[in-house]
Amino acid sequence: MKQFLNINDVTDLNALLDEALKVKANPYGYSSLGQNKAACLIFLNPSLRTRLSSQRAAQNLGLHAVVLDIDDQGWKIEFEDGTIMDGDSSEHIKEAAAVIGSYFEIVAIRAFARLQNHDEDYSEQIMNAFVKYCPAKIINMESATAHPLQAFADLITIFENKKVIRPKVVLSWAPHPKALPQAVANSFVRWMQKSDAELVVTHPEGYELSPEVINGLSVEYEQEKAFENADFIYAKNWSSYSDYGKVISEDASWMVTRQKMERTSGGRFLHCLPVRRNVIVEDSVLDSDQSLVIEQAQNRVFAMQTVLKLMLENEI
Amino acid sequence: MKQFLNINDVTDLNALLDEALKVKANPYGYSSLGQNKAACLIFLNPSLRTRLSSQRAAQNLGLHAVVLDIDDQGWKIEFEDGTIMDGDSSEHIKEAAAVIGSYFEIVAIRAFARLQNHDEDYSEQIMNAFVKYCPAKIINMESATAHPLQAFADLITIFENKKVIRPKVVLSWAPHPKALPQAVANSFVRWMQKSDAELVVTHPEGYELSPEVINGLSVEYEQEKAFENADFIYAKNWSSYSDYGKVISEDASWMVTRQKMERTSGGRFLHCLPVRRNVIVEDSVLDSDQSLVIEQAQNRVFAMQTVLKLMLENEI
Amino acid sequence: MKQFLNINDVTDLNALLDEALKVKANPYGYSSLGQNKAACLIFLNPSLRTRLSSQRAAQNLGLHAVVLDIDDQGWKIEFEDGTIMDGDSSEHIKEAAAVIGSYFEIVAIRAFARLQNHDEDYSEQIMNAFVKYCPAKIINMESATAHPLQAFADLITIFENKKVIRPKVVLSWAPHPKALPQAVANSFVRWMQKSDAELVVTHPEGYELSPEVINGLSVEYEQEKAFENADFIYAKNWSSYSDYGKVISEDASWMVTRQKMERTSGGRFLHCLPVRRNVIVEDSVLDSDQSLVIEQAQNRVFAMQTVLKLMLENEI
Repeated sequence: MKQFLNINDVTDLNALLDEALKVKANPYGYSSLGQNKAACLIFLNPSLRTRLSSQRAAQNLGLHAVVLDIDDQGWKIEFEDGTIMDGDSSEHIKEAAAVIGSYFEIVAIRAFARLQNHDEDYSEQIMNAFVKYCPAKIINMESATAHPLQAFADLITIFENKKVIRPKVVLSWAPHPKALPQAVANSFVRWMQKSDAELVVTHPEGYELSPEVINGLSVEYEQEKAFENADFIYAKNWSSYSDYGKVISEDASWMVTRQKMERTSGGRFLHCLPVRRNVIVEDSVLDSDQSLVIEQAQNRVFAMQTVLKLMLENEI
Repeated sequence: MKQFLNINDVTDLNALLDEALKVKANPYGYSSLGQNKAACLIFLNPSLRTRLSSQRAAQNLGLHAVVLDIDDQGWKIEFEDGTIMDGDSSEHIKEAAAVIGSYFEIVAIRAFARLQNHDEDYSEQIMNAFVKYCPAKIINMESATAHPLQAFADLITIFENKKVIRPKVVLSWAPHPKALPQAVANSFVRWMQKSDAELVVTHPEGYELSPEVINGLSVEYEQEKAFENADFIYAKNWSSYSDYGKVISEDASWMVTRQKMERTSGGRFLHCLPVRRNVIVEDSVLDSDQSLVIEQAQNRVFAMQTVLKLMLENEI
Repeated sequence: MKQFLNINDVTDLNALLDEALKVKANPYGYSSLGQNKAACLIFLNPSLRTRLSSQRAAQNLGLHAVVLDIDDQGWKIEFEDGTIMDGDSSEHIKEAAAVIGSYFEIVAIRAFARLQNHDEDYSEQIMNAFVKYCPAKIINMESATAHPLQAFADLITIFENKKVIRPKVVLSWAPHPKALPQAVANSFVRWMQKSDAELVVTHPEGYELSPEVINGLSVEYEQEKAFENADFIYAKNWSSYSDYGKVISEDASWMVTRQKMERTSGGRFLHCLPVRRNVIVEDSVLDSDQSLVIEQAQNRVFAMQTVLKLMLENEI
């Protein structure tokens, strides 16, 4: 595996899932793979799960991981070509990415959407600059438009808990007081579309995801109808794509409740965390056996470990 | 050892001390214990000694340690049950602690007293929430009311330097410009009461420690009288317990001086560091052979290493 | 090697260079040297290359490296003797350095010039305090007046790319919008003066370096004349030494251009990075094959690794 930016880098989703299950069954079975190699984990945004699960995943492979927090400890980076750099930016991404890539075999980056401007976010400037200028293998730890490690962990969790071959999986928008990126929803939709699942997306009008992501899937605007006979309910907030980055509704009636869960077919509850209790979902759902959110978070270790393993095996 | 929150988790203090001396005599003798395991060191407050000594202690055991600074890199955490989380907090401790515990075998936490409210601090909200919701083994790296790793290092240092079986050990309040927690004093008193020492506590009126900590020990309000024939003088500032968290006196006459040390029986000087020179204690004491503060700080490595070793051996 | 503060700590520059080439040829050949030892990397200032290359260098030797960011996570440190510490500083360097030195075999420090006061910077207060009070071996990761790890990496890069035994090496001042320290220029001049090179220094009047550094070398004030037949052009900005810490000129005509590079003898371009494009040097130079800046940055790993190796071999 040369890079892991989004699902386009996955040639065979079932093979990837098999690999993850193998890794999870034997997490320390590949602990010499990382010998004499190192990864740099670059965070331009806060992180709890990604930061910790990535370090544990690297350790399980004997791979040294170095964390770099760019906001706190780094420089303002210039991305434009030809600029006269006499302002705030003291380094160009060309040098920064090339140098980091000369120190590490693998470079993983977290850089959220700023939600100011559609084109800026959907051009994936930072991720693509690393791909272009950094000779290391690149991993997306959540970019402006995608969070493939989360979708990979979601896939593992659904596989481990499904009771039918082709479960009904519902992605439901849920209310949130702040504007959030579309990255998690985008990746979940794209991964589910390629996996053995009947995907249903439900949200209030105005929260349609990017047409390229939805790819012709029809949206169910009635949440309770969407929940009927569902095997998995994945709740997630995102801000508007068409009215880019805006919160156009905080409609509390879209919260996932125990009552709504009763419409499902013994459905399990998923969320990528952090989750706002009694805003996104009721305590009674999160604290019940239906919730899989902790297992889902734990699978982040094995998602990352699988990607790192495939990169290390591919004769870096 | 399942948890190390305070002295209640120590069943046999002499056995624990023996273990520490064994570890110190052979620090790299247990370096395969940590294999395929990892600890998360969570700092909600600044730290020099604890941060560095804990990482060294883990390394000596072959245990991978991951540092997480919550203020800088994390989220605001909700602790109350049933809250509608539509405010600042984006994650509940239930999820945060459970997820971290799914990544690490051991979780160590530093979370100082806020000194705003007695009940808030003495309820040990953060530490107890981790014990409740985090499946990992929990270590207290200084909580609102206790600093057992410091007391353990103090115990080692006193044992190594005592010249009589049952030394006279004086805990003396000393002045400080800012309000400080009672955690270090609390733990020192509780550990000394269970060890082979004649403990004397001296402080100005109004600085009485929690009755539960003092546990009937009578206080000597005359500092110079307390110092007479002492083998060890442990200086430390703390804020008022009864007038909770307040500095009710900065009385400079309570500074530890060379003159006062002359009343002791060749007494050695202890302090947990950082220490304000010529406020807590005179240069002439700190720079003399009587001072044990550096040895004491170094013993923090072996205190932590012993706790980690016992946890790792207990078939995590 | 007991300490690495500046070139005075290098007894034989050619032997050091040989060692570096040996390390670079076989970076994992000494990976048991660091066993059961650890280094503390202390950053009082931001860092990208130094932070990452030092961690990689340590890893290559099997040496555990612990990063400590003092600004973010530490205390205000007192440096004066005899102070009554009732102000902002809560710890004296005497204790801080002694304690850190009791935890680690090697301590590396980054502490930039503040450019407020010549005597403060050129007294190297922080570095010298660590040498005095810290029992560990001390490495300068860029101090107020010197950056020997950079000069060492420069030396390796020049050796690897020179086509004549004694190349003409030009250090050229270049414009920059902010006041920068003299550390990189100082060390480059001192290292080149001791190596097999014809060193020429060129800068506008008023930018003369410390007389002790220049050590009688005559300055060429015409940049284009300096470039004639040069084998290497090292561009770097620094603030005034005589009018201490001031930007007395931002003269854009001193930028390194392709046209100027044509005066050289197929000269290669060097810069320590980060570099402001089209201010210090034109894109067309940096993006050409003449540029060695990435190789130079990569050699920071081997410079640090060589210093660490020599310290570890010297029976710490």
